[in-house]
Amino acid sequence: MRVKRATIIGAGLVGSLWALFMAKRGYEVNVYERRADMRKQEMVAGRSINLALSDRGLRALRTLGLEPRIREMAIPMHGRLVHMPNGNSGLQPYGEHGQYINSISRGGLNALLMDEAEQHPNVTFHFNTRSIEIDQQKNEVLLEDTLTGKQFLTHSDVIFATDGAFSMVRNSMVKTDRFDYSQHYLPHGYKELSIPPDEGGGYRMDHSALHIWPRKSFMMIALPNLDGSFTCTLFLAFEGTIAFENLTTVPQVEAFFQEQFPDLIELMPNYVEEFFGNPTASLVTIKCYPWVHKGKIALMGDASHAIVPFYGQGMNSGFEDCTVLNELADEFHEDWPHVLDAYQRNRKPNTDGIAELAVRNFIEMRDLVADPFFQLQKQVEKQLHRRYPARYVPLYTMVTFSEVPYAEALRRANIHDAFFAKANRDQMQLIASQPESPDAEQLMDLWVDTIEKSY
Amino acid sequence: MRVKRATIIGAGLVGSLWALFMAKRGYEVNVYERRADMRKQEMVAGRSINLALSDRGLRALRTLGLEPRIREMAIPMHGRLVHMPNGNSGLQPYGEHGQYINSISRGGLNALLMDEAEQHPNVTFHFNTRSIEIDQQKNEVLLEDTLTGKQFLTHSDVIFATDGAFSMVRNSMVKTDRFDYSQHYLPHGYKELSIPPDEGGGYRMDHSALHIWPRKSFMMIALPNLDGSFTCTLFLAFEGTIAFENLTTVPQVEAFFQEQFPDLIELMPNYVEEFFGNPTASLVTIKCYPWVHKGKIALMGDASHAIVPFYGQGMNSGFEDCTVLNELADEFHEDWPHVLDAYQRNRKPNTDGIAELAVRNFIEMRDLVADPFFQLQKQVEKQLHRRYPARYVPLYTMVTFSEVPYAEALRRANIHDAFFAKANRDQMQLIASQPESPDAEQLMDLWVDTIEKSY
Repeated sequence: MRVKRATIIGAGLVGSLWALFMAKRGYEVNVYERRADMRKQEMVAGRSINLALSDRGLRALRTLGLEPRIREMAIPMHGRLVHMPNGNSGLQPYGEHGQYINSISRGGLNALLMDEAEQHPNVTFHFNTRSIEIDQQKNEVLLEDTLTGKQFLTHSDVIFATDGAFSMVRNSMVKTDRFDYSQHYLPHGYKELSIPPDEGGGYRMDHSALHIWPRKSFMMIALPNLDGSFTCTLFLAFEGTIAFENLTTVPQVEAFFQEQFPDLIELMPNYVEEFFGNPTASLVTIKCYPWVHKGKIALMGDASHAIVPFYGQGMNSGFEDCTVLNELADEFHEDWPHVLDAYQRNRKPNTDGIAELAVRNFIEMRDLVADPFFQLQKQVEKQLHRRYPARYVPLYTMVTFSEVPYAEALRRANIHDAFFAKANRDQMQLIASQPESPDAEQLMDLWVDTIEKSY
Repeated sequence: MRVKRATIIGAGLVGSLWALFMAKRGYEVNVYERRADMRKQEMVAGRSINLALSDRGLRALRTLGLEPRIREMAIPMHGRLVHMPNGNSGLQPYGEHGQYINSISRGGLNALLMDEAEQHPNVTFHFNTRSIEIDQQKNEVLLEDTLTGKQFLTHSDVIFATDGAFSMVRNSMVKTDRFDYSQHYLPHGYKELSIPPDEGGGYRMDHSALHIWPRKSFMMIALPNLDGSFTCTLFLAFEGTIAFENLTTVPQVEAFFQEQFPDLIELMPNYVEEFFGNPTASLVTIKCYPWVHKGKIALMGDASHAIVPFYGQGMNSGFEDCTVLNELADEFHEDWPHVLDAYQRNRKPNTDGIAELAVRNFIEMRDLVADPFFQLQKQVEKQLHRRYPARYVPLYTMVTFSEVPYAEALRRANIHDAFFAKANRDQMQLIASQPESPDAEQLMDLWVDTIEKSY
């Protein structure tokens, strides 16, 4: 039988995971990565970020039998631990008991996926190899060994571009006729800071939650790492009164933290050095279409749909790309032009949906988690979901703890929000405070019927 | 006094016009154009397009004293001459008596502007010179003489990129952090065809109108040329039942014309040859921001805001860029960083507005001009405008025969449409049919008050 050849451009999370899927399909897989092998590098300060792994990502890992090993390196976060400006704090659970998201090291997960892929004799990683452009005549990708400068073409039945938000393969496609493309930046940027472990190597805060300091137009968040530290991220406007442009001197930064995050100062002994030592990065949403070039070269993950990080779904949506593509490869018997076309049609509306939800969740995290009506709606939704686990599912649960397509989750959430915007506040209070009273139960029965009819 | 130096990238309509403005300001102006001098080339078949020049474009030409010469080469078009599928036709005037748009040759106008600019000793055109990229360190543009291959940097106080929808200067800016960009294609493409002059050299149709054959999902239009011919453009979906993808053989094209445009067949003796000889082109809307790079390099015209052609405002909006920029250069005494920042802030919402209106006008032209309610609203709006020339101005008049900012025109038009969607049809009929009856006049007084309060 003929050898089946697949090329993957980019050995990040999605590329490494997809190499495993394609290896299992019996393909000879060549993965080309612009950078050196990250497993042989020192971690760069300010880049040791962690991610929130949830159900969609776990599903893909489970398919490959990797879930137990991944669980070992993940830290469960059961809710948002919200730190108010007055110093009060409280936990807002993400879902029901046993539902949680997982803080995981990007580098650690990526290294594990590469190690796993390399166990397959039919997978080869080529580092220090950058993609230059699509060769339009041959429909292969032109690559360059950055150490020798030697250029060569791929030689593939199918090519997957997992080369990230600034994908070179996509850049080649942007120049072709009738290729829709957009890159849109938020007015906010972010900067990573850290809370080190305490003297005994333990955590300085509760490590079973994602911490948020909501401040309306900006916020800080913190996720736990395995070593007892937390990685914190400050999200703040670039321009304006309270903005990165006005935090350029040590006294300015100190005054900002004393006013906004006094409780963090003692937890972050190096925050001033980190503030000036770490880069201020921007936040972009990238959309494009089509994702497939001449039936053979497909964009996946951030290369096709880069989103802002506020729903913790960047990696999860990329891993879901792998799940969907793998299922379609079965369904269409690896007839790649058909598989890839079905894949892009399936994924495009859903990744547009999560892009929209991710931008909205920034407003929720920095502002609404401290808003009384928002909290009331969350409590009512929780009661509806408890009473009707299948019929009423809150948005966060659909996105994070289910595989409801993102576009469908967005559609239903819009119906939920429209309903509650018009709902009687006293009745909402009743459901929230006395959910088991006959009146509350009768109301919930009525409401879930009404909402369901709007779906 | 020091010599003031301006660079213009691109010698198209906007670049050539802006060279004239900058020459009048006393700048040494170097204009670099990728192509050869168009004035020395044969016209390429299928590219001899004409444009609709209206008030915003004329305003810029008037400032430079060019209006009389331009009028000589323009053909007034007083309305839309609509050709229905049943063979009926009728004129829908664009405005009041004396209000018309002008069919003008793109090539002829461009040549005239270049000739005029070259009259100034301080203007030099450099042809066969392409821009490669922005030199980020020096903030100048790297150019290449395409005949010799020699590369060199510009040397400028200020640089204007008028290098069109696929601007290389903008491509350099797209790669910089926090640059918003989108390119979005319509599902429709277009193909140019022509109606030659009759045997005596005269026009085969009324040449005082823009002809439209609206067919709901597609359309043909025709604009007159000075030589007795018309340039026709077929706008049609790329994919679908009635689409370019299903017009690939001579019998298919003949059947399509016999069914859809039987009246055109005898007017277009070469339509089959032209159909297969001329390219099928795509229709793109391009938006970006910021338009200014480091206070010195500014995008103008299609480079900053490429729109679809359906409102006839592509050139007009580019010429209005020149008018606004020229006024701001006066206001801020050629302090270019301030001038350019004010320019982009002024123009961005307005060019976004005309981009939206241009897409909407495609639906109007291909479908609504044949719609009874649309026609009724137009008639009522005409009566309102006659009774209150300043207080009620229909959208088409605001865009075409005024200098109301495009964004404001769009905002008001949305208010108009919302009002008429809810208005009483019988009352609309009354105003349309008996505008001078006391009841109609009373209604109009009431309506204009109501609408004005919504502004």
